[in-house]
Amino acid sequence: MMLLDGAEFSFSPTAIDPSGARHGLLQTPHGTIATPAFLFCGTRGAIKGLTAEQVRQCGTQVILANTYHLSLQPGAETVAQLGGLHRMMDWSGPMLTDSGGFQIFSLGHGGVAREIKGCRGRPTARTLIKITEDGAWFRSYRGGGIHLLSPESSIQIQRLLGADLVLPLDECTPFHADRTYTADATRRSHRWELRSLEEFRRSTGKQAIYGIVQGGIYEDLRRESCAFVGEHAFFGQAIGGSLGGNREQMREIVAMVCGQKHPTKPTHLLGIGGLGDIMHGIGCGVDTFDCVHPTRLARHGGAIVPPSLSDGTGHWNLKNARFAKDPNPIDASCPCHACRTASRGYIHHLFRAGETLGGQLLAIHNITFINRFFAAAREAILAGRWREFCRINGENI
Amino acid sequence: MMLLDGAEFSFSPTAIDPSGARHGLLQTPHGTIATPAFLFCGTRGAIKGLTAEQVRQCGTQVILANTYHLSLQPGAETVAQLGGLHRMMDWSGPMLTDSGGFQIFSLGHGGVAREIKGCRGRPTARTLIKITEDGAWFRSYRGGGIHLLSPESSIQIQRLLGADLVLPLDECTPFHADRTYTADATRRSHRWELRSLEEFRRSTGKQAIYGIVQGGIYEDLRRESCAFVGEHAFFGQAIGGSLGGNREQMREIVAMVCGQKHPTKPTHLLGIGGLGDIMHGIGCGVDTFDCVHPTRLARHGGAIVPPSLSDGTGHWNLKNARFAKDPNPIDASCPCHACRTASRGYIHHLFRAGETLGGQLLAIHNITFINRFFAAAREAILAGRWREFCRINGENI
Repeated sequence: MMLLDGAEFSFSPTAIDPSGARHGLLQTPHGTIATPAFLFCGTRGAIKGLTAEQVRQCGTQVILANTYHLSLQPGAETVAQLGGLHRMMDWSGPMLTDSGGFQIFSLGHGGVAREIKGCRGRPTARTLIKITEDGAWFRSYRGGGIHLLSPESSIQIQRLLGADLVLPLDECTPFHADRTYTADATRRSHRWELRSLEEFRRSTGKQAIYGIVQGGIYEDLRRESCAFVGEHAFFGQAIGGSLGGNREQMREIVAMVCGQKHPTKPTHLLGIGGLGDIMHGIGCGVDTFDCVHPTRLARHGGAIVPPSLSDGTGHWNLKNARFAKDPNPIDASCPCHACRTASRGYIHHLFRAGETLGGQLLAIHNITFINRFFAAAREAILAGRWREFCRINGENI
Repeated sequence: MMLLDGAEFSFSPTAIDPSGARHGLLQTPHGTIATPAFLFCGTRGAIKGLTAEQVRQCGTQVILANTYHLSLQPGAETVAQLGGLHRMMDWSGPMLTDSGGFQIFSLGHGGVAREIKGCRGRPTARTLIKITEDGAWFRSYRGGGIHLLSPESSIQIQRLLGADLVLPLDECTPFHADRTYTADATRRSHRWELRSLEEFRRSTGKQAIYGIVQGGIYEDLRRESCAFVGEHAFFGQAIGGSLGGNREQMREIVAMVCGQKHPTKPTHLLGIGGLGDIMHGIGCGVDTFDCVHPTRLARHGGAIVPPSLSDGTGHWNLKNARFAKDPNPIDASCPCHACRTASRGYIHHLFRAGETLGGQLLAIHNITFINRFFAAAREAILAGRWREFCRINGENI
């Protein structure tokens, strides 16, 4: 039994490539998402620098917003008073919110996001106070007060925000957590996820809830967690937790989890956004992805380009002096507003002059690029040409 | 004789209200401007935070860009290589560039812009080295090199930029300049304007040049300067220089100059953007205005509202806590994208959260407001209801 309010949610993989890549239709009250699909991050209730209309015009199907940031500013009650997230943001399509836990643990452990993705770097300010059976105690970066994010409060907040797809509170363990700690945390996450389901049942709203597969880098824990999410009434399943210390390990873990996941629940891979990793994930049967990469890269001058054009990074840095007098668009074959109207030289100038329009034009390009990439991936799966698609895009599977 | 390349420029006041307010059509190679009209500032080659398409969708007829900033970054030759300002910015409508002198004198005198408008404030960094008969010697804020902006080089730069309407180099005297200095500067400006005309004649391009009326606060000098601009082959006339130490004096000087200006040349009032001052200027026979006010105000959280709604400032500060939970649009009767899609509470949140989208939405609203205000002014003039229009908008003339 799927736990649904109003039965306006469904998911049906309609085409499965022999490799495991699949195309499906994920129905929500705000429209149907053709999968595989990418969710763009509207962290604080805005896709940075773009109106929702511009995001739509880039071919975007679905976006996400972050419960942690929104619950501190403007607050979930205020979002509800402003008509809920969809109305507040003028986004009429499908939307997902996370539980808020990831930011608390990420800030708390000093950059778990980087660790999960196997990156190193300077730790950020710690805001996590402690983890108890109740939930996560943290210090707000606005005002400094101490708050508890519990499974119940996360669901209550997400009910007020009103996104179509919601996530239960889980503990995001850092890479350096050992097996004993990871096993404890995974089982605590399961108890939290059950409490989230209970709270979800007690409340109402046209929403569907995903379960989150934890277990870190440990195969038996991942198997246990897949079984847990598969057997309970979660509409979908998200792959969370530590994915290892480097890209190879991340891919191994994604493949291993996908081999044990529920076969028909829609599957979301949290926080992965490189094209190669996306192709690998799709090949494993992942349906949806999210990452700040396309929009963050844009703010720093990066234009995503086809693998054949880039030097391995997957993008051009338009702040580079070699683009200063270049009258060509980023990609003459790209139909996005930036490529139809702006030269590389103009975008270079906008960054040099400190004009935010440069980052906005690049965000339009990058979002359009990713949406077209996913559209082409869906077409390839439907046509039984998935392996060829990966090869053309520099990914040998 | 008008000095025109290709005779694609014309101006005909088609309706004159008994008060002196007039409606006209200013024809350029990039389209016809219905006057009175407002020029929005794309200082560094962008209307801050908006695509040219968004600026068009706000009903904008004409924009300006600043020669000083563009000649330092990306440089006039680079703009020409990128297809000229129109193509570089994706702006297909009429455009004006200034001579570049205003910024040099403004930075040089430590804020002449504020002084011209009768404001006080902390002086900014001085970059003007000296003024000679040749032109203005200044230190670049990029790189620190010493440059000469001469009447000839200003025209050469503006030829490369390629705007429809260009301005000759003049000296912008600060408010505290005495009569002797102002008389000398005015006559030097006249000599510079004649050299500008000569350089304009020697070069080619589909452009028209305005003369600038100087003379500070001195009636006889203003009369002399009006006669100078009127009798030479300038297509239009701009009112420049010091407009006194306060709003009353500014209005007196504008009225005085307008009483002596050439009767049929299009008349531009430089840098004035308050609604009351605009109505006063239109009543004196001014055809076009420019000011950073609508877009700068937007970046700081200000939404322009009808005089009847504001507390005398002409705008609301949406960063104010009273808007935090307000689900209404800025103005339900405004057709702009911001008022159709965003609540006051959402815009408040965007500013609190540090999202630039808040400023962009306000820029869309403010530009639309000003364009609608000017459209209504033109309609009122055509209908012989100009005085009534001013009364409704809180301006008794």
